[in-house]
Amino acid sequence: MITQVEQEWDSLKKDYQERIQSAKQYIQTGKIVDSKDTVSLLEAVIKSGDKVSLEGNNQKQADFLAEALCKVDPGKIHDLHMVQSVIALDSHLDVFEKGIAKKLDFSFSGPQAGRLAKFVNDGKVQIGAIHTYLELFGRFFVDLTPRVALIVAYQADKDGNLYTGFNTEDTPAIVEATKFKQGIVIAQVNEVVDKLPRIDIPADWVDFVIEAPKPFYIEPLFTRDPALITDAQVLRAMMAIKGIYAEYGVQRVNHGVGFDTAAIELLLPTYGEELGLKGEICSYFVLNPHPALIPAIESGWVKSIHSFGGELGMEKYVSERSDVFFNGPDGSMRSNRAFAQAAGHYALDMFIGGTLQIDKYGNSSTATASRVTGFGGAPNMGCDAKGRRHATDSWLKAGEEYSTNEQLIGDLPRGKKLVVQLQETFREKLAPGFVEKLDAWKLAENADLAIPPVMIYSDDVTHIVTEEGIAYLHKCSDMNERMAAIRAVAGYTTLGLEEDSNETLTLRQKGIVKTPEDLGIDVSRANRSLLAAKNMKELVEWSKGLYEPPAKYRNW
Amino acid sequence: MITQVEQEWDSLKKDYQERIQSAKQYIQTGKIVDSKDTVSLLEAVIKSGDKVSLEGNNQKQADFLAEALCKVDPGKIHDLHMVQSVIALDSHLDVFEKGIAKKLDFSFSGPQAGRLAKFVNDGKVQIGAIHTYLELFGRFFVDLTPRVALIVAYQADKDGNLYTGFNTEDTPAIVEATKFKQGIVIAQVNEVVDKLPRIDIPADWVDFVIEAPKPFYIEPLFTRDPALITDAQVLRAMMAIKGIYAEYGVQRVNHGVGFDTAAIELLLPTYGEELGLKGEICSYFVLNPHPALIPAIESGWVKSIHSFGGELGMEKYVSERSDVFFNGPDGSMRSNRAFAQAAGHYALDMFIGGTLQIDKYGNSSTATASRVTGFGGAPNMGCDAKGRRHATDSWLKAGEEYSTNEQLIGDLPRGKKLVVQLQETFREKLAPGFVEKLDAWKLAENADLAIPPVMIYSDDVTHIVTEEGIAYLHKCSDMNERMAAIRAVAGYTTLGLEEDSNETLTLRQKGIVKTPEDLGIDVSRANRSLLAAKNMKELVEWSKGLYEPPAKYRNW
Repeated sequence: MITQVEQEWDSLKKDYQERIQSAKQYIQTGKIVDSKDTVSLLEAVIKSGDKVSLEGNNQKQADFLAEALCKVDPGKIHDLHMVQSVIALDSHLDVFEKGIAKKLDFSFSGPQAGRLAKFVNDGKVQIGAIHTYLELFGRFFVDLTPRVALIVAYQADKDGNLYTGFNTEDTPAIVEATKFKQGIVIAQVNEVVDKLPRIDIPADWVDFVIEAPKPFYIEPLFTRDPALITDAQVLRAMMAIKGIYAEYGVQRVNHGVGFDTAAIELLLPTYGEELGLKGEICSYFVLNPHPALIPAIESGWVKSIHSFGGELGMEKYVSERSDVFFNGPDGSMRSNRAFAQAAGHYALDMFIGGTLQIDKYGNSSTATASRVTGFGGAPNMGCDAKGRRHATDSWLKAGEEYSTNEQLIGDLPRGKKLVVQLQETFREKLAPGFVEKLDAWKLAENADLAIPPVMIYSDDVTHIVTEEGIAYLHKCSDMNERMAAIRAVAGYTTLGLEEDSNETLTLRQKGIVKTPEDLGIDVSRANRSLLAAKNMKELVEWSKGLYEPPAKYRNW
Repeated sequence: MITQVEQEWDSLKKDYQERIQSAKQYIQTGKIVDSKDTVSLLEAVIKSGDKVSLEGNNQKQADFLAEALCKVDPGKIHDLHMVQSVIALDSHLDVFEKGIAKKLDFSFSGPQAGRLAKFVNDGKVQIGAIHTYLELFGRFFVDLTPRVALIVAYQADKDGNLYTGFNTEDTPAIVEATKFKQGIVIAQVNEVVDKLPRIDIPADWVDFVIEAPKPFYIEPLFTRDPALITDAQVLRAMMAIKGIYAEYGVQRVNHGVGFDTAAIELLLPTYGEELGLKGEICSYFVLNPHPALIPAIESGWVKSIHSFGGELGMEKYVSERSDVFFNGPDGSMRSNRAFAQAAGHYALDMFIGGTLQIDKYGNSSTATASRVTGFGGAPNMGCDAKGRRHATDSWLKAGEEYSTNEQLIGDLPRGKKLVVQLQETFREKLAPGFVEKLDAWKLAENADLAIPPVMIYSDDVTHIVTEEGIAYLHKCSDMNERMAAIRAVAGYTTLGLEEDSNETLTLRQKGIVKTPEDLGIDVSRANRSLLAAKNMKELVEWSKGLYEPPAKYRNW
């Protein structure tokens, strides 16, 4: 009754060998291919319809390979399915414009968000889904395994071993998924050397190495000039420190990329010290090496930082702070996005960051109809890690306060991750931070997505901080109370104007809404003079000259 | 106002160098240490109070190093904090008995569960927390970074490169966390060779290599003899296939370790084929290489399997099925628990497995007062991945049916992972599968845990399958209805006897409870004759002789 299928079981392997065979002609010695042969190499090893992972990280970019991919003959190679973390460069979308690629599964597209939205509208890009990083890496091992990976490293040796060092980022995840499913791995490197500082990716996992004509592109994405921090941001930072960090004893945390969290970092050695919080909060971070954290590190606040990626200019500082960062035997850091995101999901007490829009229920998104930005790591870190089983004080306290717990799981106690949204009621160009309905609905329609792309869902958010106050959302007994708490901190937005002052008073009495006054914060002190460093120069001084900011930040 | 702290920033590095220095005398050539010097080496590099990760995986064990650790002088080395996935061997607890170790953070302790409970009661072990694997790995990069890692590989070369191959499992996660925070990595290997099949761990990441006197211990943990599958298990498997797999079109799945899921695997080429489900369900697995899956693979059901670890006897079969498994250029598989768990959390439509106890609310646990078993990967895979943002049909359907959605997030649509518990109403020795209150409460008290250790929480469970029927819990409108649905499938347990037959009828009409009859399943067909393979010999035949079961399973 059962029929055994006559099937080839090594078709991928045979296909791999055929592709490698047809690329042999471009190899000089070992695994080295001359950069002038890059396009020919790609045409030899890539086939139409392939899933291709073009390494686009949050910081470093395989830009030379990206440009080469744009030059392949679309008559020969088309309908590629790009599976990559970040759409950052023009070339990342040019491959779609040229008809070489068709489908896209990704995580983040900040710098190309507007153009991507246009491409989607014009039908040039078919979006599979917008993922959080670790989710995309997970799918690499299930149903989105790359056939070809185009990756990037600082250095290779002649055998093909790679040094990815400070900016290791996504490389290990991409390479492992590709190479161990009989795929092809091509690396662009800044230089081929005799001996690497250390080996990050073994040569066995790499098929071809190309010395690119110039070093790979890298973006200092997490550098915030303290000179640009506003008094309003200082106020929100003070409120967050006193009303959340101190209140819950938050020890393990990830900060978002914005100025609000930079302000928090710069207030630790001043306002934090004044509140007696040193050692009580912020001992462990999962975070890129933010320059704004230098004063807190130098003041002895921080025990450990594990990083997703590097940050341009922080190489030497990080190397000299090996007690804090994860540095290799050679002295340079090894970032690793996969492990940092696993830690960010499971080992943190709190995720805190900004967003573009929050709806009346508390759902938030950075996607708008004209900008497909993606979410990066936010959904992974900014959600309650339901699989978490270890307890910390802050996790237990948030869980005890979570009033929906009994409806969900009965009489069992359970903790909850703190997920904090820092929000201006009005952002740039007076765009309201609170809206009736997220623009994500429109985007879903335009891009033919199954559901609106939400960055953080309401049931995961515990706190919203605006200049009006803090809403402790998880304490709300039902959706109506939650919506009232959101209105209470939504300021002069349309949503905020629907606030009922009696209702807000009740929420304040319940401790669900707290104004600066309720928190005992003297608003007159909320100004830039509280920052431990007020500009880039002071950050460099704090670092004892070890931090070397990129030229565009050197304004002194 | 700010005081900069005078601080050493490389104390870990100096400490590392001191330890290495005092161990230099034991090195023969390169990184090789003679096995007879192992205890001396450990006494040289480990200090009291260290966090030590002794590699204990689900399958392979660093057993030689574990035994050596038991022989160090407790006068010199004591109060170690063990941070390791699995407590499997006597030696894993002997280090506590001997006063060498004091605290334990871990994930799973199946084989030592009874003894561990006793140690906890006697105050010999202080449990930090019971984690799910990926959570523990995450903490390795935050607040549980090992100072010393004692790991295990098949082979090393003279430089210290390691081949972990088929059973790579946890090794990359442990080594990366340890070595990049200036920790010390010691590897036991089965042999030192001139040339490795491939490099899994670069030599730069390893400090010492010891050729152990005998090959490392490994357990065939996922091998289920089809001869032991009962008719009741066949019935539950039929119900799961028709009532869940087919109903939701489940394509991406992880199966637990039990006989119920082995039965499901063995029904795919028979009952599944008959229902026309080939290609419609079970194309992608995250799973160890279960022998029971061989008939489905050979019948062309499976596109891809990524594995946490290996399975003894499956080496050759997996090597010859490179289209399906993740094999390296050398032909052997590379398992990787960290990536498989990331995939298991984020890329699967369904987690299905068994448990020991389910309470009246639907919370389940394998922990009892006298057995501290831990959970392994279950909490990570058996929870709703709140950070997930990509849609599949089954995820969307479960989300649409989830009646609590609006209370939690308003009018936004969201999917939900299918989390299925297969449960006998009475297990071995007539222990009830459904209870008023979980034994986990008592355990929490005995072990001084902050909260009862729950494996899967009620709000994550979508389905419970017993011989009585399937409860579609996520469809229930509130906790009362959920409790009624649980009673309806709880059989003759005390909980089940509280069933109200009118209430159950209403639930059946709503499609919240379905009996075999409701599902259109002919119970008389539910017997072993439906299994694609009925014993180990037939599995070997299906594999064309490639599967080589361990001796204890060779009964023909």
